[in-house]
Amino acid sequence: MSDAAAAVDLDFGESGRIPAVAQDADSGEILMLAYVTPEAVERTRETGRAHYYSRSREELWEKGATSGHVQHVEEIRVDCDGDAIVYRVDQEGGACHTGYESCFYRTIDGETVGEQVFDPDAVYE
Amino acid sequence: MSDAAAAVDLDFGESGRIPAVAQDADSGEILMLAYVTPEAVERTRETGRAHYYSRSREELWEKGATSGHVQHVEEIRVDCDGDAIVYRVDQEGGACHTGYESCFYRTIDGETVGEQVFDPDAVYE
Repeated sequence: MSDAAAAVDLDFGESGRIPAVAQDADSGEILMLAYVTPEAVERTRETGRAHYYSRSREELWEKGATSGHVQHVEEIRVDCDGDAIVYRVDQEGGACHTGYESCFYRTIDGETVGEQVFDPDAVYE
Repeated sequence: MSDAAAAVDLDFGESGRIPAVAQDADSGEILMLAYVTPEAVERTRETGRAHYYSRSREELWEKGATSGHVQHVEEIRVDCDGDAIVYRVDQEGGACHTGYESCFYRTIDGETVGEQVFDPDAVYE
């Protein structure tokens, strides 16, 4: 991770935020999708830990600040239009507040395909 | 792919669309991110080929309709909140209009990490 200015321009558009996909850097599994502002990307680059912007709480948040399930960001990738990014991460614990490793633990037909890796009742009080 | 009604409810919110991440079902590589409406998801489930909604053109589109680089959707996954989905696909050709396999072919520092798999000038006229 570099704390220098990004070389690739991001296009945050009118909303001021773009989607960020967190992907396990080793397995390639897609862990979650959330949103980032310029400040969230900057904080991620500065700290090496994934930061996002909560649309409902309207605030910057660090993934794992409450649960301890932080994401160590090995690389940030940018798409061709500069309006979506990927955080390639080393995930502590699980990414999903339900206890699953990935938030995408179900198919659209309702089948569970993901793995539960922690007990949410023991992590979130 | 089933053409029955989806078992998991999706939350399309006020905008009426949610982000969809296309992921190579074999390699796990993230290929692109675009948006879907209920109609786009329905068409994807009916045809087995990835459909999206273009925010700029304000229309449903099938990936590869022009280029031939269609995405055969093996599975659709839904996140915990139902407001993002993953298309797990078998990608014909490359996903990016620039000729790269993935739209996420650059790091934020400007390093090219993706592989160019076709000549865009030969595909798009």
